[in-house]
Amino acid sequence: MGYHEYQKCIDACLKCASTCNHCASSCLSEQDVNMMAKCIQMDMECAALCYAAAQLMSLGSVHAKAICKLCAEVCKACAEECKKHHNDHCKECADACNKCADECSKMQ
Amino acid sequence: MGYHEYQKCIDACLKCASTCNHCASSCLSEQDVNMMAKCIQMDMECAALCYAAAQLMSLGSVHAKAICKLCAEVCKACAEECKKHHNDHCKECADACNKCADECSKMQ
Amino acid sequence: MGYHEYQKCIDACLKCASTCNHCASSCLSEQDVNMMAKCIQMDMECAALCYAAAQLMSLGSVHAKAICKLCAEVCKACAEECKKHHNDHCKECADACNKCADECSKMQ
Amino acid sequence: MGYHEYQKCIDACLKCASTCNHCASSCLSEQDVNMMAKCIQMDMECAALCYAAAQLMSLGSVHAKAICKLCAEVCKACAEECKKHHNDHCKECADACNKCADECSKMQ
Repeated sequence: MGYHEYQKCIDACLKCASTCNHCASSCLSEQDVNMMAKCIQMDMECAALCYAAAQLMSLGSVHAKAICKLCAEVCKACAEECKKHHNDHCKECADACNKCADECSKMQ
Repeated sequence: MGYHEYQKCIDACLKCASTCNHCASSCLSEQDVNMMAKCIQMDMECAALCYAAAQLMSLGSVHAKAICKLCAEVCKACAEECKKHHNDHCKECADACNKCADECSKMQ
Repeated sequence: MGYHEYQKCIDACLKCASTCNHCASSCLSEQDVNMMAKCIQMDMECAALCYAAAQLMSLGSVHAKAICKLCAEVCKACAEECKKHHNDHCKECADACNKCADECSKMQ
Repeated sequence: MGYHEYQKCIDACLKCASTCNHCASSCLSEQDVNMMAKCIQMDMECAALCYAAAQLMSLGSVHAKAICKLCAEVCKACAEECKKHHNDHCKECADACNKCADECSKMQ
């Protein structure tokens, strides 16, 4: 499978990475940052993995499927955490994570 | 300026990074790779910078403007090189680079 | 200038990126995360820029000097923030940031 | 397991990523780039994965082990390809890949 077949999943990964970065940064400006600590941690991990998945897919790598599998797990975990909070950036992030997990799962 | 104001530029950077990765990988499958060597080199540099610019913007960094300035330069140089070749992936990449250079320039 | 001449600066950037990631993650486990919010934000920005600088240098890019200049600024700002805190990970991070800022400045 | 326990593996991953970038870029300056095409492709994939593994480890992620497993596979494949070539950068890269594969395997 090549770049153009991967396009939807690449887009979902990159959207998710950006949304995670935005969520992490926004969480740091909330009144009670302690409450957001786990969310920030998961955002950072999820962003790193989504970028890597997007890179391997855009390079047409034979390892794309394997990293997408891992990415789907991390995205699901991040979405679970984000769903617990009621800030707009957390809701937006949960949506992007779920969408990305779906697309990554379709790669399997 | 925050994440949502940066959205168009983030999208252009991420699209450009993916297209550069795809172009680099596709150049390696062309018949005469020697002719594509400079294009591959610029693709790799451009992808690295576009990802970094997207990251700083999505983090709402005060340094976003500075990296976008540098990103615009690298994108223009990559577009110039890609324009010299007639493969679809090079044309697609030149377009993504020019679009990204435009968006990054608007940040200044 | 090529890869081997860049070696010390690449090493300093990668050490700094890892130390920033570790500091960000460790800050999130401190008792008063609110007090660490700015430190985490700067860690994330600094890590992103250090990785990008290391990448451009290891690719032997003509743009390495320019990203190192920006990287030095971000590292200095991150070190200033980390110095305000007395956790081991913050001290370790301030040291890595200052070392990286020095090496990046030598590139100019 | 935390950052300091991961230190040797993080260092091996980052060294490998840099060496892969340097190898890719150097391959592009060889006389017969066609012969180096697969090496360049693997270098790019390996660098992306090594950076991501280093990031997850330095963040103290619970997913570090999983990405290290994948990283070890990609490093071994990259080392196999690099070993076929007699340029210094390819030998240096094969060594860094093998060292990284070893460290990543120890995480399992």
